[in-house]
Amino acid sequence: MLLLRRCHSLTRFGPLNTHSHRVAPAAARLWSSSSSEDQKSYHGPSWRHALAGLLAGTGAVLAYGLCHHKAERDDTPTVQTIEKTSALPIFSQEEVNTHRSLEDGVWVTYKGGVYDITEFVAMHPGGDKILLAAGGALEPFWALYAVHNQEHVLEILSEYKVGELKAEDLKKQQAVQTADPYSSDPERHPVLRINNLKPFNAEPPPELLSDSYITPSAIFFKRNHLPVPQVDPASYRLQVEGLPRGVLTMSLEDLKTRFPKHTVTATLQCAGNRRSEMNKVKLVKGLNWGIAAISNAKWSGARLRDVLLAAGYGPDVAKWAVHVQFEGLDKDVTGTTYGASIPLRKAVSEEGDVLLAYEMNGEDLPADHGYPVRVVVPGTVGARNVKWLGKIIVSAEESSSHWQQNDYKGFSPMTDWDTVDFKSAPAIQELPIQSAITVPADGAVVDRSLNEVTVKGYAWSGGGREVVRVDVSLDGGKTWQVAQLRTSDKEQASEPSPPPGQAWAWKLWEVTAPLPAEAQELEIVCKAVDNSYNMQPDTVPPIWNLRGVLSNAWHRVTVKIREDESEE
Amino acid sequence: MLLLRRCHSLTRFGPLNTHSHRVAPAAARLWSSSSSEDQKSYHGPSWRHALAGLLAGTGAVLAYGLCHHKAERDDTPTVQTIEKTSALPIFSQEEVNTHRSLEDGVWVTYKGGVYDITEFVAMHPGGDKILLAAGGALEPFWALYAVHNQEHVLEILSEYKVGELKAEDLKKQQAVQTADPYSSDPERHPVLRINNLKPFNAEPPPELLSDSYITPSAIFFKRNHLPVPQVDPASYRLQVEGLPRGVLTMSLEDLKTRFPKHTVTATLQCAGNRRSEMNKVKLVKGLNWGIAAISNAKWSGARLRDVLLAAGYGPDVAKWAVHVQFEGLDKDVTGTTYGASIPLRKAVSEEGDVLLAYEMNGEDLPADHGYPVRVVVPGTVGARNVKWLGKIIVSAEESSSHWQQNDYKGFSPMTDWDTVDFKSAPAIQELPIQSAITVPADGAVVDRSLNEVTVKGYAWSGGGREVVRVDVSLDGGKTWQVAQLRTSDKEQASEPSPPPGQAWAWKLWEVTAPLPAEAQELEIVCKAVDNSYNMQPDTVPPIWNLRGVLSNAWHRVTVKIREDESEE
Repeated sequence: MLLLRRCHSLTRFGPLNTHSHRVAPAAARLWSSSSSEDQKSYHGPSWRHALAGLLAGTGAVLAYGLCHHKAERDDTPTVQTIEKTSALPIFSQEEVNTHRSLEDGVWVTYKGGVYDITEFVAMHPGGDKILLAAGGALEPFWALYAVHNQEHVLEILSEYKVGELKAEDLKKQQAVQTADPYSSDPERHPVLRINNLKPFNAEPPPELLSDSYITPSAIFFKRNHLPVPQVDPASYRLQVEGLPRGVLTMSLEDLKTRFPKHTVTATLQCAGNRRSEMNKVKLVKGLNWGIAAISNAKWSGARLRDVLLAAGYGPDVAKWAVHVQFEGLDKDVTGTTYGASIPLRKAVSEEGDVLLAYEMNGEDLPADHGYPVRVVVPGTVGARNVKWLGKIIVSAEESSSHWQQNDYKGFSPMTDWDTVDFKSAPAIQELPIQSAITVPADGAVVDRSLNEVTVKGYAWSGGGREVVRVDVSLDGGKTWQVAQLRTSDKEQASEPSPPPGQAWAWKLWEVTAPLPAEAQELEIVCKAVDNSYNMQPDTVPPIWNLRGVLSNAWHRVTVKIREDESEE
Repeated sequence: MLLLRRCHSLTRFGPLNTHSHRVAPAAARLWSSSSSEDQKSYHGPSWRHALAGLLAGTGAVLAYGLCHHKAERDDTPTVQTIEKTSALPIFSQEEVNTHRSLEDGVWVTYKGGVYDITEFVAMHPGGDKILLAAGGALEPFWALYAVHNQEHVLEILSEYKVGELKAEDLKKQQAVQTADPYSSDPERHPVLRINNLKPFNAEPPPELLSDSYITPSAIFFKRNHLPVPQVDPASYRLQVEGLPRGVLTMSLEDLKTRFPKHTVTATLQCAGNRRSEMNKVKLVKGLNWGIAAISNAKWSGARLRDVLLAAGYGPDVAKWAVHVQFEGLDKDVTGTTYGASIPLRKAVSEEGDVLLAYEMNGEDLPADHGYPVRVVVPGTVGARNVKWLGKIIVSAEESSSHWQQNDYKGFSPMTDWDTVDFKSAPAIQELPIQSAITVPADGAVVDRSLNEVTVKGYAWSGGGREVVRVDVSLDGGKTWQVAQLRTSDKEQASEPSPPPGQAWAWKLWEVTAPLPAEAQELEIVCKAVDNSYNMQPDTVPPIWNLRGVLSNAWHRVTVKIREDESEE
C-alpha cells in the first residue's frame, strides 16, 4: 500500500502528458493496453519514470518510481512471455553488431532475444549513454545496475522484440556473462544503511555520525558509481597528461617518496545528501540518501599542486589550461571509467589543499575509498574526489564524463526531464552551507521527567568557508538558541580556526535545552551560518530539483514528549 | 500617528525589562517620572533604545526608535529646563578635563552646563566610544551625529547635570564650535533618496538602478561615516606601514605612474542594504536602507598586491601577518579616522583584484567615493572598501576600529543589545547571495489590458561567486520561472563568465510573464543562486539581527492588477 501511494503521488506531481507525442508506437501500444482510463494514466507515468531511471548510467535507483503492479495486472507480459513469443527470424551476433546507431538501427540482445530499441532511444532521459549497449548484450549493463531486474522493464523490452539470437552466439555470450562484476567488492560494516548494493552506496546511522569528529573509515559513507576495482599496489601506475613535458607516469612508491606527505582533515559530502527530504516534496531521480551522506576524515598524501609542478606545470600552462580532469580505474562493461574535473585554479592553489591521498585516518585507503590513491578536493562535492585514481589530465576543457556534464548540477524547481538543459547549469563544485540534526531522530520520544532535551548534529560549508554559528529551534523556527560548536574528538577541546578559506572540516554541535512546559511535541530545527554569512534556505520545495541534489534547507525533526506516568 | 505606531511596535517587540537593574539612578528617576504604569513601559524602552543609537559612533540613525512625544508629555523637561536649573557649582575647563575615565568620573560639557555621565557609560551599547567626549564638550560630537538634536536626549542629559562651566571657558569653546564639519561636503544628485544628511547616506531610486549595468557615479549609493575630507591631490600622501623596509610614502603621482593601472568592474554593497525589511519584523539599529544600497562601477587603480610587494611584502611577512588595515582621512572631532581591515590573503592574492582605486567609471573618484584614492575590495562588504585612503598597515591583528570590532557583524535573531558579545562573531567580509526586484515597485498597479508584466532586478554574491540563476515567482513562491541574466549595458550582449572566484560584478535580470487570468494581486518574489549553489533564505525573521545587516531573504513586492474598465 505504501508503494502504491507513492506511485499515486508520482502521478499527481509528475509531468504527465507533456511528451506523449514522443512515445514510440510499441511503447504506446503497451501503455494503452490497460483496460480503464484510470489505469492508463496510472501506469503511464510510472513506467515512463521507471525508464528514466534505468539506463542513466549513474547507478541511480528510482526506488519510489518503480512500483510493482503484479497483483493488479496478471495479464501483463512476463519473462516467460518473452521466452515464448517466437516465430521470429534468427540473427547472428555479427548481424546484431551492425545495428549500433540511430541510422543503422539500435539493436540489443537479452537472454537470446534480439530487440530493436531504436524508437526507445529518444525517450531515454539519460541521453545517449544507452547507446553503449548498442549491437551487444544488455546483461552486462543490467548486472551493473541491478535496478533493471524489474518485471516492468521486461514488459517494455518485449514490445521491441524482432528476432532470436543464433544458439551458438548465445552460448558464447553466456560464458562471458557468468561473472558478477561486483563479486570482488570488499566486505562492509553491518551497521551501514544500504541505499544500493550494486554499485554499493550506504550511509551510517546519524547518531553514530555525531559521535566522533573524525568518522571511522568503516562507517564513512560509501558512494560508488561502479564495481570496486582490484588494484595491485606494486603494478599501480598514475599518469599525468597534458603538460609540456609529456606524460608523467608514477608508481605508488614514487608518489609516497618523491613528494612531501601532507595531511588535511576534510569533510566529504555527496551532492545527494538529504535527497530523501526532496523525495517527500516530489519524486526525484537518485539514491534516497538520508542525512548521513557526509563524513569527516583525516587524509594524507601528495599535494596535487606538487605533482603538477613536477610534471611541468607553470605560468605558460595557466595561459590555456582551465581544468584538471581525473579518471578512475573503476569501469563499466564498455571500459568507460568514472571521471570528473575541478578548476585548475583550485588544483594548483597553495591554499587549495588538493591531495592525491593514499591514507585515510592514518591507514592505507580502504578499498571502498579508492585504494591505493584517490583525489581529495577539500570543500568540493564528493563526486569530484575521484577514487582509484588512474589518470590526471590538465586541459582547457572540463571532463566530458556523464557525471560532469549531465549529472550533479542544480536546476530551478520547475525544470523537469522534458525541459532540462544540462548545459545551462554549472557542474557542482563548492557546496553550499549545510547542517542537520543527528540526535534525536525524527519521531523519537522524550520523557518529560528528563526535564531537558539534548540536540546534536553537524554543520559544514563548501569552499573552505568556516561554520561560525548554528541556530537551533525547538518550536519550528519561532525562537532560536545558539549551539556549542566542536572541532575535535577531545572533550571540551576545540582547534583554533583555520586560515580564512581553508575550513575544510565540519563542526559538530550540541544544545541542551529545558523542555518547554506546555509542549506535547517539539519541532526541532537547525540552521547554520558560514563566515560569508551564507544561511540555509528555510524550506525544501523552493530548492527542489529533478536530481534531488543540494538539499540544504533547515533540517527538521519532530519529537514527542511522553508525560511522566506516575504523575498522571 | 505613523511615528507613534512605530514606537508602539518597538515596545511590543523590544527587550523590555531585561536590564532595568542596570539603569543608573538618575535615568531611573526620569523613567519613573511618568504618571501611569502604561506610560512608563511605553516611555521606558523608547528612550532606552534612543540612547542605544545616540553615541554608537557609526552615524547610525535610529529613525524609528526616536519618537517625539511632546504632545503627550508637556510636563517633561526641555532645553529651557536645562538652562534654568542652576544653583550649581562653577567648574573651569581645566577641572572638567580631569574627569576622563570611569575611575576619575566621566564629565562632559554642553552649552555651558557640566554633566557627570559616569553612570551612563555602562548603559552605552556602542561601548566605550562614548569616552571620546570625556573631559570635553559634547557639541562637536553632536554636530557630527545630527541625531542627537532630539529633545529626549536633552532630557536624559539634564539628569546628570552637576555644575556650570566658567564663562570665559564657554566663550573659548563656542569660538571653536561655530564651524559645521559637513559644510564642505560636495553637492549631490537630487534624485538620491537621503537616509541621513550628516554624515551623508543615500541610495538611488530602485528603478534607476536596473536601468544601467554600470551605475553612473552620481547615483551610486553613498555611505559616509564622517564628513567628506578635503584632500589636496598635490600634497596627498599614502603611507604603507608594517613591512620590513619601513614606512613607504607615496604621492598620488607615484601611485599612478609606478604601478600598472588595473581595471575591475565590481559591485559594492552596504552590509545594511535592505535593512528596512528587517525593521518591519522588529526594529533594528541602523540607517533604514531600502534595496538600493548596492551599485556597480568600473574601478581603476594600482593593485594593492603590487604596492605591498613594492613595499617589501614577501614570504617572511606571510609568516606573521594576517590582516591588512586601512585608515581613511575622514576623521571625527577627536581625530579618530574611519578604519577597517581585510585578510592579508585577499590583499596579496593575484586573483583577489584588490585595488587602490583613483578612478571610478573612467574619471577621477568623486569626492563622495573617496577622492583621491580609495580601496576597492571586490566581493567584500562595502565597509572594508575604505575611502579617502590615508594609511595601509600590514599587521597580525585586525583593525581595532569600532567598525571592524563592534559593528558589521551578524548574530542570531535572539541576540539583543543586552546579550550581544561582539567578539563572538567574525567581522563581515564576503557577503552572501543577494537579489532584489527593482521593477515593479511594491504597491504598483498593472493594467490587465497589458496582458503581461515585466519584472526586473539585480543579483550578486560575495567572494567572487558568480550568480548562475535567478528564479522569479508571481504567486508568492509557489511556482517559479528562470529570469534572463544581463552582464553588459549593450542590448542583448553579455560578457563571458569571469574566471571562477572572480565574478565581482552583479547581474541584472528580467522576466516578462503573462498576467495570471484569475489573479487580482501578484506577490512577486525573486531568489538567486550562485555558483557554489548558495541560495537566499525564504523569510526575514529567522535571519533578523540587532544591527539589521545581511538582509538577504527572498525579496517580495506586491502588485495590484487593475481590470480593464471598458470590459467591466
